[in-house]
Amino acid sequence: MSFRPPIKHCRACGTAVVYRVPDDGDTKERAVCPACDTIHYENPLIVVGTVPVLDERVLLCKRNIEPRWGKWTLPAGFMELGETTAQGAARETDEEAGAAYEMGELFSLINVVRVGQVHMFYRAQLLHDRFDPGHETIEARLFHEHEIPWDEIAFKTVRETLQWFFADRKAGRFGLHQLDIA
Amino acid sequence: MSFRPPIKHCRACGTAVVYRVPDDGDTKERAVCPACDTIHYENPLIVVGTVPVLDERVLLCKRNIEPRWGKWTLPAGFMELGETTAQGAARETDEEAGAAYEMGELFSLINVVRVGQVHMFYRAQLLHDRFDPGHETIEARLFHEHEIPWDEIAFKTVRETLQWFFADRKAGRFGLHQLDIA
Repeated sequence: MSFRPPIKHCRACGTAVVYRVPDDGDTKERAVCPACDTIHYENPLIVVGTVPVLDERVLLCKRNIEPRWGKWTLPAGFMELGETTAQGAARETDEEAGAAYEMGELFSLINVVRVGQVHMFYRAQLLHDRFDPGHETIEARLFHEHEIPWDEIAFKTVRETLQWFFADRKAGRFGLHQLDIA
Repeated sequence: MSFRPPIKHCRACGTAVVYRVPDDGDTKERAVCPACDTIHYENPLIVVGTVPVLDERVLLCKRNIEPRWGKWTLPAGFMELGETTAQGAARETDEEAGAAYEMGELFSLINVVRVGQVHMFYRAQLLHDRFDPGHETIEARLFHEHEIPWDEIAFKTVRETLQWFFADRKAGRFGLHQLDIA
């Protein structure tokens, strides 16, 4: 979840790049190759995940990877090429929790500007309480609202999404929640 | 809007990369540097834009760039680092139409899997009908629904978004529309 190191060499030919505004009408500095003129763009990444629910409980995963090793998170990770946002959210739920579920609606969309990420969480209906988490997860566990380890949640986007989920459930109506975090 | 060429050289040290599954538990082939071990990830890009509206009319821009030179589009482009999705949509509206407007709600979210893109359009309320388009636009023009050049629309995501807009306006209620395009 951390920022990417700067581009130093051209992805096409390996020459050391220079940072300048390209000549094509662009207004931002890019890593430009002085040998082959390739312009390298860096853009925000999409993080996709789910809020997996079984009856009154929500599934959280204890992270076995950095950053935030040992903290609890909703299953989520970087969207890959060749999949939709919902397919990516499902894949991450498979990888991190090994859960059986039915995908639901888009529930939260959060811009995390400082790290160049857009986080999207879908609701998911768990089919049973047997989990088979992958190597990125120490433990996958269901929590009632009063059991949620609020001080041990790995990411602000997860905490916000969980708070919206419990508030919406109390209200009896689930919407799409949007937030910008500087 | 086209797919990116493959990574041939390491962004950190310039060495020629090899494509293989990294040793960190990953399941996908990545461009890995045999010299410095940098793993290069490629992920979907976000395209953000607006549906700018003045009274009964919608603003379209005639493209002065490839792909789809000369075709009509809603103002849209790649989201940049350092901005939110809505700020990116606003920036593209400034750049491509030079319009004065108030940003509205998220209106469409479309996965375009083949090209690795997620498109998001926000509604926008134009404040007047004077435009100052940038170099990427030949002409910025307001269209009534019956004037829309449906056969000259640059992208399927723009066509779908326009169709949803007119349908929602007829119904008197705007929602969030989602679609996956293979």
